[in-house]
Amino acid sequence: MSENAQYEFDLLVIGAGSGGVRAARMAAAAGARVAIAEDRYLGGTCVNVGCVPKKLYSYAAHFHDSFDDAEGFGWHLPGPATFEWSVLRDNKTSEIKRLNGIYQRMLEGAGVMLLNARATVTGPHTVALTSEEGVNQVTAQKILLATGGWPWVPDFPGSEHTVTSNQIFDLDAFPERFLVLGGGYIAVEFASIFNGLGSDTHLIYRGDLFLKGFDEEVRAFTRDEMIKKGVNLHFNTNIERIEPHGSAFKVYLTNGECQEVDAVLAATGRNANTQGLGLEALGIHLDSSGKIPVNERYETAIPSILALGDLTQGPELTPVALAEAMQLVDIHYTKTLPKPLDYATIPTAIFCHPNIGTVGLSEEAARKKIGNIRVYCTNFKAMKHTLSGSQERTLMKLIVDDASDVVVGAHMVGDEAGELIQGIAIAVRAGLTKEDFDRTIGIHPTGAEEFVTMRTPARN
Amino acid sequence: MSENAQYEFDLLVIGAGSGGVRAARMAAAAGARVAIAEDRYLGGTCVNVGCVPKKLYSYAAHFHDSFDDAEGFGWHLPGPATFEWSVLRDNKTSEIKRLNGIYQRMLEGAGVMLLNARATVTGPHTVALTSEEGVNQVTAQKILLATGGWPWVPDFPGSEHTVTSNQIFDLDAFPERFLVLGGGYIAVEFASIFNGLGSDTHLIYRGDLFLKGFDEEVRAFTRDEMIKKGVNLHFNTNIERIEPHGSAFKVYLTNGECQEVDAVLAATGRNANTQGLGLEALGIHLDSSGKIPVNERYETAIPSILALGDLTQGPELTPVALAEAMQLVDIHYTKTLPKPLDYATIPTAIFCHPNIGTVGLSEEAARKKIGNIRVYCTNFKAMKHTLSGSQERTLMKLIVDDASDVVVGAHMVGDEAGELIQGIAIAVRAGLTKEDFDRTIGIHPTGAEEFVTMRTPARN
Repeated sequence: MSENAQYEFDLLVIGAGSGGVRAARMAAAAGARVAIAEDRYLGGTCVNVGCVPKKLYSYAAHFHDSFDDAEGFGWHLPGPATFEWSVLRDNKTSEIKRLNGIYQRMLEGAGVMLLNARATVTGPHTVALTSEEGVNQVTAQKILLATGGWPWVPDFPGSEHTVTSNQIFDLDAFPERFLVLGGGYIAVEFASIFNGLGSDTHLIYRGDLFLKGFDEEVRAFTRDEMIKKGVNLHFNTNIERIEPHGSAFKVYLTNGECQEVDAVLAATGRNANTQGLGLEALGIHLDSSGKIPVNERYETAIPSILALGDLTQGPELTPVALAEAMQLVDIHYTKTLPKPLDYATIPTAIFCHPNIGTVGLSEEAARKKIGNIRVYCTNFKAMKHTLSGSQERTLMKLIVDDASDVVVGAHMVGDEAGELIQGIAIAVRAGLTKEDFDRTIGIHPTGAEEFVTMRTPARN
Repeated sequence: MSENAQYEFDLLVIGAGSGGVRAARMAAAAGARVAIAEDRYLGGTCVNVGCVPKKLYSYAAHFHDSFDDAEGFGWHLPGPATFEWSVLRDNKTSEIKRLNGIYQRMLEGAGVMLLNARATVTGPHTVALTSEEGVNQVTAQKILLATGGWPWVPDFPGSEHTVTSNQIFDLDAFPERFLVLGGGYIAVEFASIFNGLGSDTHLIYRGDLFLKGFDEEVRAFTRDEMIKKGVNLHFNTNIERIEPHGSAFKVYLTNGECQEVDAVLAATGRNANTQGLGLEALGIHLDSSGKIPVNERYETAIPSILALGDLTQGPELTPVALAEAMQLVDIHYTKTLPKPLDYATIPTAIFCHPNIGTVGLSEEAARKKIGNIRVYCTNFKAMKHTLSGSQERTLMKLIVDDASDVVVGAHMVGDEAGELIQGIAIAVRAGLTKEDFDRTIGIHPTGAEEFVTMRTPARN
């Protein structure tokens, strides 16, 4: 009789998002008896109210540009294209239901037991499951907390009239006038999306410029491009209060302005989704940013209770949660010794319009960390826009450690930037040099070839 | 007095295409007295009848799909979009004139003398320039042959009714019915372009399958995708004869079929454009493929006469001609010792629909050269097409040397494949391993992330 036979499960995962599902499946594949508890939707934020619907809506918003661009290429539309929100929303919902089903079948196929319930950890090896049928205690040798993040909205008069990214995809009616509060990637993405779909769009951010922490030139360039596309950017101001006005809202800003809009999105941050997990009673304390501290084995203060993904420190990204899940399973179940994740060179994309793709250090971070750097930079009108009439421009830059010639950062603002940066990220993570970039032949004509043909530093 | 003062120029470049212009500019920048002779158009094939107009027309053809795709995203067009050939053609012509002007100003700015004349080499240091004003002899210490390639059309009854890529962009009328003869990249690109623009399109190729030399799976996948998009592919047949039929043409095939079409493009290969250069009289003989043999210093049998680009062996690609030009100038003028070009890992794209991007070895070539390989492969519907209703699929594959774990080939058929492969090419050229790919975090949601998340070999 194995040491685990005293528990109903070897591993009980709480939360069926990206990290939880991956850990459950892989632990089951490694022979563990696994259950996963989820009271909301399979696939978590990413599939249901994050990456997937966001990208679909971003595609939808891009068509607006396509219709305009097409004329210079000889295409003629008999009249203006019209947009029907309900078609997009409902097609998105069908697609997500399809993905939910795929997740369910994947879990079942892997032998993971699905528990449709809200889970509270009641001890190092016990979880209370609350569902319509009541409360049920289960035991597991290990418990993995994978409940991800949850939108946070600041408290101000009328803040109850805002929606978050949890609701925005499913608005009943299309907001002809749209306002988003926030300066992070979610804010700029939704500003671009609703602007592209045809909303009169306002972004309100209390700081000087959005996307804090990203490369300064990328931030300024993105600002200029978003303004060109018609997004109304309001920096150095905040929402003072929101008042309902018929079916609309009057949004009073701290700078004295007032915008009347049909929907207000609060994209004001996300917190670790720890509420109701029972951590306090167990003595698992959160760090100052509200995250659950874990060691390199993903163990919390109670070693049988593990945590990963947005609940813990590190970039809040689906691929990071997936990578952590695979590491965790390697450590605890397949018993291989995985190499630690390299958090310094995690690439990411922001699906504002134009897109941002980035990996490694910003120019500012590199100057601070390395000192002597070379910055290669190009800023051009993509070939497509020589005929489209669009004034959209593309920015690409490489940050190089001058002494070692290693490329320590790559940044792009432009069409499909995330797609382009992925391959570049392989090179940057591996520590390749500018000479490695230069010796690679360009693919002509592409935008990406600029990454291997920048010969002269813009500055040192 | 310098040893070159006896010559009017240090370098006389013949042909103002990609390679010639780059060599002329850089040699001038290095202090040489440079002239460039061109009797046709600045920028050569790439700018005037190659890469640039091809890519613009490919963009134009993609809009057709966009209009269809948009409906699933909630967009409604009041009626079908119509295409006007003359708008695309004339906008393209304006753009190319703009680029010609940029080339002219770049050359003048670099201090290169432009000679608008047809050049014939008459001795190791002498060139006869023929223009409207007559024939003029000039002398140069070195002469660079950079006249590129020229379409070749096989001889068959009615072959005079075909056009080549030199004329196709400027057809007077849009061919509602279009036929292309050939199985190379130019043939598949134009088949996709005219199909996308709305032509009833036929591709005729004498072999079993087009794109010989590319990865077999890529070739078959591209065939299937092109058929889905409505291109009529006719393999294992050839044109027997073409007969004019009013303003159209009857194309009789060797398989007994006959297609009536409005234009026939012969995309049947390109030869080195050596005619009239005077090589034979100088004793510079062509190799069996019609190319000019050169040594690693780009010197022909007469050391003062150099050649590069499509005139010489190697991939017929603009970035290769550019790279060779820079090498040549380094060798002969800046006197730095450049590292030799790595011809084995030159990435390339084919702008058929969907696009192909490729770098390194095909599966077949890797099996032959290396033996033990691992093949990672994925074939999926891109996220965009979960709502668009399009049945288009994407193929990605990696070929890995099993012993060393080095990624020796990467291939993609799908949207923006060339843009995605550029970064991958940096990794492949540098000899990175599959583990380097695996340790790179994906950018979600992109197509490109598949290149770093393929865990299980499809086959060995």
